[in-house]
Amino acid sequence: MSLLTVGTVAYDKIETPFGHSEKIVGGAATYISLSASYFVKKSKIISVVGDDFSEDFLDTMKSKGIDLEGLQIKKGEKSFFWSGKYHYDMNTRDTLTTDLNVLAEFNPILPKAYQGSDFLMLGNLSPEVQMKVIEQMVDRPKLVVLDTMNFWMDISLEKLKEVLMKVDVLTINDEEARQLSGEYSLVAAARKILTMGPKYLIIKKGEHGALLFDKLQMFFAPALPLEVVKDPTGAGDTFAGGFIGYLAKTKDLSFESLKRAVIVGSAMASFTCEEFGTERLITLTQKEISDRINKFVDLVNFKF
Amino acid sequence: MSLLTVGTVAYDKIETPFGHSEKIVGGAATYISLSASYFVKKSKIISVVGDDFSEDFLDTMKSKGIDLEGLQIKKGEKSFFWSGKYHYDMNTRDTLTTDLNVLAEFNPILPKAYQGSDFLMLGNLSPEVQMKVIEQMVDRPKLVVLDTMNFWMDISLEKLKEVLMKVDVLTINDEEARQLSGEYSLVAAARKILTMGPKYLIIKKGEHGALLFDKLQMFFAPALPLEVVKDPTGAGDTFAGGFIGYLAKTKDLSFESLKRAVIVGSAMASFTCEEFGTERLITLTQKEISDRINKFVDLVNFKF
Repeated sequence: MSLLTVGTVAYDKIETPFGHSEKIVGGAATYISLSASYFVKKSKIISVVGDDFSEDFLDTMKSKGIDLEGLQIKKGEKSFFWSGKYHYDMNTRDTLTTDLNVLAEFNPILPKAYQGSDFLMLGNLSPEVQMKVIEQMVDRPKLVVLDTMNFWMDISLEKLKEVLMKVDVLTINDEEARQLSGEYSLVAAARKILTMGPKYLIIKKGEHGALLFDKLQMFFAPALPLEVVKDPTGAGDTFAGGFIGYLAKTKDLSFESLKRAVIVGSAMASFTCEEFGTERLITLTQKEISDRINKFVDLVNFKF
Repeated sequence: MSLLTVGTVAYDKIETPFGHSEKIVGGAATYISLSASYFVKKSKIISVVGDDFSEDFLDTMKSKGIDLEGLQIKKGEKSFFWSGKYHYDMNTRDTLTTDLNVLAEFNPILPKAYQGSDFLMLGNLSPEVQMKVIEQMVDRPKLVVLDTMNFWMDISLEKLKEVLMKVDVLTINDEEARQLSGEYSLVAAARKILTMGPKYLIIKKGEHGALLFDKLQMFFAPALPLEVVKDPTGAGDTFAGGFIGYLAKTKDLSFESLKRAVIVGSAMASFTCEEFGTERLITLTQKEISDRINKFVDLVNFKF
């Protein structure tokens, strides 16, 4: 099944209490598509970079089966840049710099060859950009997954609500679920959000795992407790990539399959946390992934 | 199997962002023994109250099979009183008042009839008091579970370390595990703490669940996402009571059984959060408990 990912391809610079990175490749679409590449042989990207972006890295993405026809490369402009600093808990962070650069005027264009994509992953971007992609697709994908954040709830809530009406799965964190719903209890928040468009809601709680809801059921996947967490940047996007990648591979959209997809996403995210940036996502093997999934099975398995 | 619980029987006054209680019955031994009473028909308590303590409540405890011979009632003195205020996240709180009262000079005395107890639950109290109980027991219990908190790590670390050498299971929260071990990663913290005496470590993460470790294995149990959390006070003690009560009932001390005991403890704790104080723990039915345990099964169950 064909997977199309919309999101940033960018540069990051990261500080944690335990170390820091140079300027390294980041971006939602980068993490999503790399993570998904372990489940789908080919996928497509819509994004934008400046001509400062590493050609080597683009070659790496291509070598993972990621089609870059929809990646605009803006001559004389710079790629989106974000830098941030994690707090001691590694679960919260401050943004130090956000240089929009090419993102300021991003007008996503869907190449003809991208029509007919069955799985659409809308990474965290302005709801306007997300909507423009949806509107360009002649056939509605079988599954549309949307990631967003509190920033868009603050400045672009009405447009975000329009986009929500068009998607099947929403992924946000616990605070964002509370903000979007006005409910403190995540159970109550989920019930409300599931009236706003999405059939499924995933609430990401970082190191505390993730919750999957539909109108009737609830599923919880833990995050794998790690010996070393070097850098959680991109963990949420990696999760989304594993989630939609697994579904695109299996073509099974039952709740049972979505549960497995949440476990796969959590397993993939745990790799990303082990090194700065996309480093772990470049070199994974299928054996490492299946071993990691088995760790999740062991972690929560019990019998009465 | 006989269960002996050591801990406070006390009064609490609680404020949350969503409500507040009058002066109500609380205390670690209260929650532990009430929770365990759904698994063991008879248990014993060592504690102390003043003559201000509700006789009706003591009758309720007795009606649940809790033997109060080891409960000292100090004439002319007042029971331990704690009041606290929960933050908006309901997972952290400030202490407003701590009136030690009878607890200031508490000298635990083990009645003769308490000798031979097979399961010993040392609720959160000074390590000196915990050690005095251990030393009075002629035969070592089959299982000793210890709960403690950062306060004792701050002011009585050496004595606490002595007690740790005498116990099988330690239950603390994530910040306390980090403090006790000096390790940030909970995996690394657990490895270190398991060299300090206990064979098993349970790290309680409140609404984010609990982790069980032995030297080789790790198990995670979520907290049940609740529609309404009225008051988390006593949830950790209720967890401990369900945990040791289940083990005392089944007499199975394998890791698989400990995993089930963690799920049972989490199920019991979820009830306590639904009302202020011990209200839910007084009136539970076996059917409510087994239905709640089934909710945990559904919450984390997946198949690859």
